[in-house]
Amino acid sequence: MRLTILGSASAKPTIQRFNAAQVLDVNGRPFLIDCGEGTQIRLKMADVHPMRIQHIFISHLHGDHMFGLVPFLSTLSLHNLLSPIHIYAHPDLEKLARPWLDYFCRDLTFPIHFHPVNPRACQVIYQDKSLTVTSLPLKHTVPTCGFLFSSEDPYYHLIPHCVEDYRIPIAAMNVLKSGADYVCADGRVIPFREVTTPPRPPKRYAYVSDTAYKPSLIESLQGVDLLYHEATYNTALEDKARQRGHSSARQAALIARDAKVKRLVLGHFSSRISTADQQQSLLDEAREVFPDTSLAHDLSVFEF
Amino acid sequence: MRLTILGSASAKPTIQRFNAAQVLDVNGRPFLIDCGEGTQIRLKMADVHPMRIQHIFISHLHGDHMFGLVPFLSTLSLHNLLSPIHIYAHPDLEKLARPWLDYFCRDLTFPIHFHPVNPRACQVIYQDKSLTVTSLPLKHTVPTCGFLFSSEDPYYHLIPHCVEDYRIPIAAMNVLKSGADYVCADGRVIPFREVTTPPRPPKRYAYVSDTAYKPSLIESLQGVDLLYHEATYNTALEDKARQRGHSSARQAALIARDAKVKRLVLGHFSSRISTADQQQSLLDEAREVFPDTSLAHDLSVFEF
Repeated sequence: MRLTILGSASAKPTIQRFNAAQVLDVNGRPFLIDCGEGTQIRLKMADVHPMRIQHIFISHLHGDHMFGLVPFLSTLSLHNLLSPIHIYAHPDLEKLARPWLDYFCRDLTFPIHFHPVNPRACQVIYQDKSLTVTSLPLKHTVPTCGFLFSSEDPYYHLIPHCVEDYRIPIAAMNVLKSGADYVCADGRVIPFREVTTPPRPPKRYAYVSDTAYKPSLIESLQGVDLLYHEATYNTALEDKARQRGHSSARQAALIARDAKVKRLVLGHFSSRISTADQQQSLLDEAREVFPDTSLAHDLSVFEF
Repeated sequence: MRLTILGSASAKPTIQRFNAAQVLDVNGRPFLIDCGEGTQIRLKMADVHPMRIQHIFISHLHGDHMFGLVPFLSTLSLHNLLSPIHIYAHPDLEKLARPWLDYFCRDLTFPIHFHPVNPRACQVIYQDKSLTVTSLPLKHTVPTCGFLFSSEDPYYHLIPHCVEDYRIPIAAMNVLKSGADYVCADGRVIPFREVTTPPRPPKRYAYVSDTAYKPSLIESLQGVDLLYHEATYNTALEDKARQRGHSSARQAALIARDAKVKRLVLGHFSSRISTADQQQSLLDEAREVFPDTSLAHDLSVFEF
């Protein structure tokens, strides 16, 4: 997995930090998470072609997490996209977006499927053969879900030169990829361990934004490879954080520590945390609790 | 007047060129013209504080000219703006924007006045003591208006040190500013020409985007100080331009030449005009017809 931050601001964007958006690359497929204003520009800067995105996950219906969505879809239509776009979000999104799409993108070239996400349930909202996305109900001022991306590689991978060396018949391939030896018609046995590499190790990424400190998340986040957790404020502003359904950097680090995650990335910074000193101090507060913490910056990349 | 280009792309934004938006400074007051996605970011880059904007003019309801509007208004509310915002646009804008404002900006801190613009009429749509804005019906695929900004300074300006030197009474000030001498109670005459500087010369700016070649505009544009005219395509693509309700650079220059404007700025470039060579060739085509032509770039400034 490779996470690219497209926007790391909270409500008020700045020149350096656009509103919330990121793209998670899972074995070469990009998944868009939130879509603040200017997401399509940041995608260009991150060198992700918009046409490669098929699935968009929106955490909640605050403008700073979705004002870039209709513009992005509009541009896809100008590119004559044909394949469907799937959007996973609170059911209100479709009611809000449809009239705009009908007006501004009259000749939309592709179908859009809105998949309503129940903001109160921890549910599988997307699944394919190697990736599962689960909703994580959060504690914000409006219904909000984080997302847990779990990739599992179900297949052994054939080593290209072995196909010829072992004269592997077509019929054997799926058997070997499933992790079983293949017995040929002539009795010859092809051992899967000799001709394949093992499945890629499973990876898990959790996106947790926006939320007040919510220790009940810890169970779902146990041992994830990377946790992105909002850290709108510093410790001194924890009262304000609680009132506004946000977290401090220290609280994000407590979640990371208690869930024993491998790495923590903080984002969604208040415009009060604007200078390098303020950001360093926010990072220091988190690192006191959980040392392997990084700050998100627009266009920064985390591979894991 | 000072024009700052905020976005100079046509429908598909690029990293260098955001969607249409510009800010016209008239004697220190900023007027926003169109509001494509990311306008609030570009305003920051241009060092224009969003709270200083009170009037927004939207030429037409294509997304690339207004997707930045609701995000911009949302940010104004986060800044706790109190004074009203006036928006001049096709009447459909209010129908489209209100449900989003009601949903995403529930506690909007300021009133918004939508002023419907009749896209078929050349009408005064805004007027104060020194500025008049007139709509200019254009020829596009949807109802579209350009805008003509005419500033006229009705007042002479008191020279600060003269107020003391001539012992100008408060009651005399408006008389002198109106361009008349003042006779004091003791019979002493204060000659307005000695204590004031003359009114600023009138200035006119015309915004013409989006439109097919429309020679009937020439009369309204006679002698304007600066004409911004869209030039989506080059001469080779004039057929496409006509079909899509756009102009070539050459056609924009013909309008500028025939209206005897003082200076022409071209913008709204197709994503096909992306390289420096293509842009230079587009500029060359215009300059053959009207030499005093410049290309708009995001954040470029034109003073006049």
